[in-house]
Amino acid sequence: MIPRYTRPQMAAIWSDQNKYKIWYLIEAHATEKLAELGVVPQSAVEAVWSAKDVEFDVERINEIEAEVKHDVIAFLTHLGEHVGEQSRFVHQGLTSSDVLDTCLAVQMRDSADLLLQGMDRVLAALKTRAMEHKFTVCIGRSHGIHAEPTTMGLKFARFYAEFKRNRARLVAARDEIATCAISGAIGTFANIDPRVEDHVASAMGLAVEPISTQVIPRDRHANYFAVLGLIASAIENLAVEVRHLQRSEVREAQEFFSKGQKGSSAMPHKRNPILTENLTGLARLVRSAVTPAMENVALWHERDISHSSVERGIGPDANGHLDFALQRCAGMVEGLIVHADRCQENLDAQGGIHNSQRLLLALTQAGVSREDSYRLVQRNAMKTWDEGGQLVDHLKADPEVTAHMSNAAIEACFDEAYHLKHVDTIFTRVFAD
Amino acid sequence: MIPRYTRPQMAAIWSDQNKYKIWYLIEAHATEKLAELGVVPQSAVEAVWSAKDVEFDVERINEIEAEVKHDVIAFLTHLGEHVGEQSRFVHQGLTSSDVLDTCLAVQMRDSADLLLQGMDRVLAALKTRAMEHKFTVCIGRSHGIHAEPTTMGLKFARFYAEFKRNRARLVAARDEIATCAISGAIGTFANIDPRVEDHVASAMGLAVEPISTQVIPRDRHANYFAVLGLIASAIENLAVEVRHLQRSEVREAQEFFSKGQKGSSAMPHKRNPILTENLTGLARLVRSAVTPAMENVALWHERDISHSSVERGIGPDANGHLDFALQRCAGMVEGLIVHADRCQENLDAQGGIHNSQRLLLALTQAGVSREDSYRLVQRNAMKTWDEGGQLVDHLKADPEVTAHMSNAAIEACFDEAYHLKHVDTIFTRVFAD
Amino acid sequence: MIPRYTRPQMAAIWSDQNKYKIWYLIEAHATEKLAELGVVPQSAVEAVWSAKDVEFDVERINEIEAEVKHDVIAFLTHLGEHVGEQSRFVHQGLTSSDVLDTCLAVQMRDSADLLLQGMDRVLAALKTRAMEHKFTVCIGRSHGIHAEPTTMGLKFARFYAEFKRNRARLVAARDEIATCAISGAIGTFANIDPRVEDHVASAMGLAVEPISTQVIPRDRHANYFAVLGLIASAIENLAVEVRHLQRSEVREAQEFFSKGQKGSSAMPHKRNPILTENLTGLARLVRSAVTPAMENVALWHERDISHSSVERGIGPDANGHLDFALQRCAGMVEGLIVHADRCQENLDAQGGIHNSQRLLLALTQAGVSREDSYRLVQRNAMKTWDEGGQLVDHLKADPEVTAHMSNAAIEACFDEAYHLKHVDTIFTRVFAD
Amino acid sequence: MIPRYTRPQMAAIWSDQNKYKIWYLIEAHATEKLAELGVVPQSAVEAVWSAKDVEFDVERINEIEAEVKHDVIAFLTHLGEHVGEQSRFVHQGLTSSDVLDTCLAVQMRDSADLLLQGMDRVLAALKTRAMEHKFTVCIGRSHGIHAEPTTMGLKFARFYAEFKRNRARLVAARDEIATCAISGAIGTFANIDPRVEDHVASAMGLAVEPISTQVIPRDRHANYFAVLGLIASAIENLAVEVRHLQRSEVREAQEFFSKGQKGSSAMPHKRNPILTENLTGLARLVRSAVTPAMENVALWHERDISHSSVERGIGPDANGHLDFALQRCAGMVEGLIVHADRCQENLDAQGGIHNSQRLLLALTQAGVSREDSYRLVQRNAMKTWDEGGQLVDHLKADPEVTAHMSNAAIEACFDEAYHLKHVDTIFTRVFAD
Repeated sequence: MIPRYTRPQMAAIWSDQNKYKIWYLIEAHATEKLAELGVVPQSAVEAVWSAKDVEFDVERINEIEAEVKHDVIAFLTHLGEHVGEQSRFVHQGLTSSDVLDTCLAVQMRDSADLLLQGMDRVLAALKTRAMEHKFTVCIGRSHGIHAEPTTMGLKFARFYAEFKRNRARLVAARDEIATCAISGAIGTFANIDPRVEDHVASAMGLAVEPISTQVIPRDRHANYFAVLGLIASAIENLAVEVRHLQRSEVREAQEFFSKGQKGSSAMPHKRNPILTENLTGLARLVRSAVTPAMENVALWHERDISHSSVERGIGPDANGHLDFALQRCAGMVEGLIVHADRCQENLDAQGGIHNSQRLLLALTQAGVSREDSYRLVQRNAMKTWDEGGQLVDHLKADPEVTAHMSNAAIEACFDEAYHLKHVDTIFTRVFAD
Repeated sequence: MIPRYTRPQMAAIWSDQNKYKIWYLIEAHATEKLAELGVVPQSAVEAVWSAKDVEFDVERINEIEAEVKHDVIAFLTHLGEHVGEQSRFVHQGLTSSDVLDTCLAVQMRDSADLLLQGMDRVLAALKTRAMEHKFTVCIGRSHGIHAEPTTMGLKFARFYAEFKRNRARLVAARDEIATCAISGAIGTFANIDPRVEDHVASAMGLAVEPISTQVIPRDRHANYFAVLGLIASAIENLAVEVRHLQRSEVREAQEFFSKGQKGSSAMPHKRNPILTENLTGLARLVRSAVTPAMENVALWHERDISHSSVERGIGPDANGHLDFALQRCAGMVEGLIVHADRCQENLDAQGGIHNSQRLLLALTQAGVSREDSYRLVQRNAMKTWDEGGQLVDHLKADPEVTAHMSNAAIEACFDEAYHLKHVDTIFTRVFAD
Repeated sequence: MIPRYTRPQMAAIWSDQNKYKIWYLIEAHATEKLAELGVVPQSAVEAVWSAKDVEFDVERINEIEAEVKHDVIAFLTHLGEHVGEQSRFVHQGLTSSDVLDTCLAVQMRDSADLLLQGMDRVLAALKTRAMEHKFTVCIGRSHGIHAEPTTMGLKFARFYAEFKRNRARLVAARDEIATCAISGAIGTFANIDPRVEDHVASAMGLAVEPISTQVIPRDRHANYFAVLGLIASAIENLAVEVRHLQRSEVREAQEFFSKGQKGSSAMPHKRNPILTENLTGLARLVRSAVTPAMENVALWHERDISHSSVERGIGPDANGHLDFALQRCAGMVEGLIVHADRCQENLDAQGGIHNSQRLLLALTQAGVSREDSYRLVQRNAMKTWDEGGQLVDHLKADPEVTAHMSNAAIEACFDEAYHLKHVDTIFTRVFAD
Repeated sequence: MIPRYTRPQMAAIWSDQNKYKIWYLIEAHATEKLAELGVVPQSAVEAVWSAKDVEFDVERINEIEAEVKHDVIAFLTHLGEHVGEQSRFVHQGLTSSDVLDTCLAVQMRDSADLLLQGMDRVLAALKTRAMEHKFTVCIGRSHGIHAEPTTMGLKFARFYAEFKRNRARLVAARDEIATCAISGAIGTFANIDPRVEDHVASAMGLAVEPISTQVIPRDRHANYFAVLGLIASAIENLAVEVRHLQRSEVREAQEFFSKGQKGSSAMPHKRNPILTENLTGLARLVRSAVTPAMENVALWHERDISHSSVERGIGPDANGHLDFALQRCAGMVEGLIVHADRCQENLDAQGGIHNSQRLLLALTQAGVSREDSYRLVQRNAMKTWDEGGQLVDHLKADPEVTAHMSNAAIEACFDEAYHLKHVDTIFTRVFAD
């Protein structure tokens, strides 16, 4: 976790302190059920719950681990230092993985919930800005080249739709990752009653893992990280759009630039899209978790522990950095300055060539073949591009065109409302529910 | 597409022939609606449908494309060669992307349907084999080391559960990818009525894309390829298990080896797990589509065409190779030879140390502290490992153990039924519906 | 290999025809040495060389393989159909991998040589264009925002330097991949004399692999594909620059657009940077080979065959697509239209704020603190950005500035030659040898 | 950086403290040369060097950065708090990137040096163990199936050769990454004399970057991380071998297991290969840096800052985790317990079928056709595999075999020395220099 790109809420989820708290809860709930089933004495339950408010001593646990080289045993030994000799009944029939994997499920689920909050903030911001700029006309671009008019609202709406799809994917992935396995060595329940699993799952707010093999199957995690990769890519998509809009030559939008902020140590004139450039990089970073998570799926036989070091990295990192990125992204959208005047200037700057298709269709419908229509419009559009002037004028001066279309018919192809008539249709589709 | 790893059914979906057929259908259905809306004459509809049974001439289209450097224009020109001058009404208000992206959606959906057939075959095979070997006892292994007994049926059941989760993910991804966009330049419907989109979507069996920007948003595709990556990883998971089981020292299972097959050109004694090694490699290949698909998400402004060359690769390749891999995987599972006798031999070979946990629990319940119990069992297990013999005998010869447990109590920890008592529970969970 | 993105030269290297030719040569050279060492009769050499001009029948070999399920055995069987019963002396002591891996080394080396030709063409084009536009002044941009002037020549020079570094990396990777292993099963030379390896290596123009284990170690291949990934990234770097320069609002450069070419089926006015967008996508595709190539490194024990299916994909694909991309890239650079006038217009469009740093330095040296200098210049630069006008005028109207600098001193900060004084220095560094 | 997988030496290189120290040195050396060139007063040099022994206050710098939102400006402001108003001459004509990128070059180079120490330790360990077990015979395995004998020494030698190749790659990547850029905004040296760059480069032990554009080109970094990916893959390769050798059924080698270590919290009998499983995971983690590093290459125009957040992650992480992995790997190799007796047992366990190739060759040379020889040997090998017994006996009982070979000739094919005769040859090749 890069501290600069991690919020305290997410850091807390992945802290050792929180991890040991979750381990404790899993063990305590398991002991509770074990006592109910008569496997361990009721006194063990009281003993273990007596540590309910203990803040476990991370240093001390690390110290023990350095000796026994096993993290769960270290924790259990430390727990014994709090609850006394009844602690020998704790962890009866469980394996370390029961504790570790169920704990990871809790951390992943809680991370997902934080990410969903971030996504909701992004969605709300995008919706607000979309409504605000529903009819802020600007040029649409394909291949970076002016194409036909669209609106800034449609841009926001497009990202809204993508984030909404990703939100649904994350909800699904969150539910898939939130499973509990307390199935003992190799997952056969030989030494642990399945009712313990039921009980712990329910207490921790998780579903029961139908078949575990000492580990929860890693396709659940891989699926989760793949969804994080998709969300990161959506952030990149939005970030790249803003970076383009803020270019010196475009200037249709600009990240909010606070008082006292310096764009460059050397060039005082700079106002750089540093938030969105930063988001672009963070997207790459989050996405880099996808492949190792998929490589983690094929464990040897019932389990090996190769996945563990990977998850110690990507678990906190991909969740943490994406959480930060979502909040930064939301703030960026909320504060984004949209220059409607520049939008209009850019739209006007190309001599009206963005209406070439309408003219093509008009000529076709006036009886000119598609090939000839294309040629006629292209010829005048290229002239406008290369020599300047207005396309409407070039067309009116082209006898091959005027042979088929009156000046009035030509001019009628240059109103902007034509391009906006279905903005409502699209907004209804996107924001309906 | 590597011909060796592509089935004809999948090759057909991605053939130029099929692509042009889909383009044709999209154009024809669009023209139909355009005529109904009065945009083009009814005669154009009849003209275009007159080519219904034409096999388009791929060579000829390529020839035209070489000149005009635009694939859709080349196709339309060729279509004109079939349907005559009415063809000028075809493609009215559409852009190439309307055709290309909707076509891709059809190909992806049809690919998904083929993949689902493959998954169903794998699932059926896994279920059959799981039932067959529900109680074929074998040693479970964690870290490659003997742990406690499990059954071959549970192995198959575990993969079944993973494939089932992946099946659900693929169904979701298939539905997400199956959208139609006929929204014209920049996606504003300026030159095309949204009802055309509705009509084509419905005719092609697709949903309407709520907001497109001349392209269907690429997160849909990225999500799809991520799911293919998960399925590939599941295949690798299963393949790695079989490769381990077939090792010379393990020999608990073996890929079917046909008469006349040669394992090695040099060593006539070899029976190699080449199918599963092949599947391991194919998994890497399929998975390699995930990252570029995610890199495709962030297009510039309303669209650029950088995604296109990527999809010309990963579209047919990832679908094609995964389809092949699923069929090979299914056949491999169907034909897999399970050596129940070897399972038993391996289980017996370690002197019973796989019961160490039961003994640990038994000692603990006999009042020995967890630490001491662990030490006592470990000491005898290591002795068994290092010096051979049976753990039960070493324990009975250890006075520190016998001080707490009778010989009978020790021996009672060595029956196998103990490990199998919840196989039914797990099977019910996995195969319930 | 996507035919559209593959040149015939590269397709030939990876054709079955060529593969069998190389297999034949390896076997023939090996037999030659085996005869010299007295292991096989001299007559076998003559027999095998009698097939020197045979075009092997790919169909027939496939047919045999379908039966024996082993490609090398199929080839040897077919060879026997040409050279008769002396063929039993061929492949004595070799394993399939000796043939396959040495063949792959030849194909990779030959591919590298083709790629080096492509790189040389790119390098030549970049150098030519750099020299041509050494002093074509344009605005340099950081974060997409105008910064300070640079030249188009420096842009070309920068890519030249990057391609040159990549060329050196490819030469190194080529040499690393060009090794021959004829070491027999497990690589111990038990059944084959190391002198056979020496002989074949020398005959095929390869180095001897110091230690093989039936396979040539896969780090060599992984290294090679990593270098292809770097070259692909360099192409993307250049492509992204051109795409930016061709944007409607920038228009400082433009891909050559041939007569008769159509930019868009719908919008006749479009001139899109489709070559560089295509290159951007191809870069993603080539780069996707890197991870699976690295996953191929860790084979099981002395070898498994999981790498094989991966290499059947990435071998021809990454080489083929990169070869195509390099040629397309070279042609694009050669034909690129540079609009020097637009460069100047863009430079002039921002009211001279690109000189802000000079003014900052000048104020600092006039005794103003860095903080105050920064504030003064930023204030006037932002005014220029927001309100228009020329920075020089705003400064001359700012009494806090003129308190420290005369009008003449201010104006002296606005000549362009100042920015170009070290272009020669840099060109000498880049193009020295 | 995961603390658990980071050594203090590497953490120190990437600490904020060290970063600010390097920034300071770059600024101080630059000021020195600027004074010599008469750009700033000599007094500035003395002022700046007066802070030579200052431990910069990271907290304070962060505090300033929170306000100005610019890290280098924050540092310079803090520097001014130490050296007084002369600090206004510091950073004259430099940009932040000059400082940041040159600092990163120093950190990467120093990381590389630490990694090289790690590689040398691994290499030394591999060489020692190779020599020790040069003739410890064991079965070689292809496809996980017994093939022909090899030696444990050859296994170590193979990894040695791979690490040596990677060492050379790292040395090259280290030299490529160690460049200094002090070229000012956009890299034109407009406001900074190239002699400053020369001076700083030389003072910091770096080469001069021939052409920078405010940033050092990112292909250098991508190349570096690709090499880290290769080294990680080599570690995985070795780790997978050891994991296989330690399997319960194989037990030819075993990670050193210290007194007091617990293999499993639940199963006291376990001795798991946790070091090598951990290394397998760490390899995935390190390798995940390769793709984002390559995505960083294509910056917009002269530079954008998207690479920065990526490098804040992968810079310390990939270097740190690989450094840890190399040390762990070295320790693992040094302490690895090789069970020569188990090697022999496994070799003997398959009834001598590993000599099948010799028999095939012997039969061929006795005049039997290759096809028939293959069939005869395979038939007897399969019998041995399926029914047990010794291959030599099955052959002697097969009349079709004995028609061509005497019993003595058959028996002569079963001595082990035959397989070891070229171990010396290979060792000489690998360890020659």
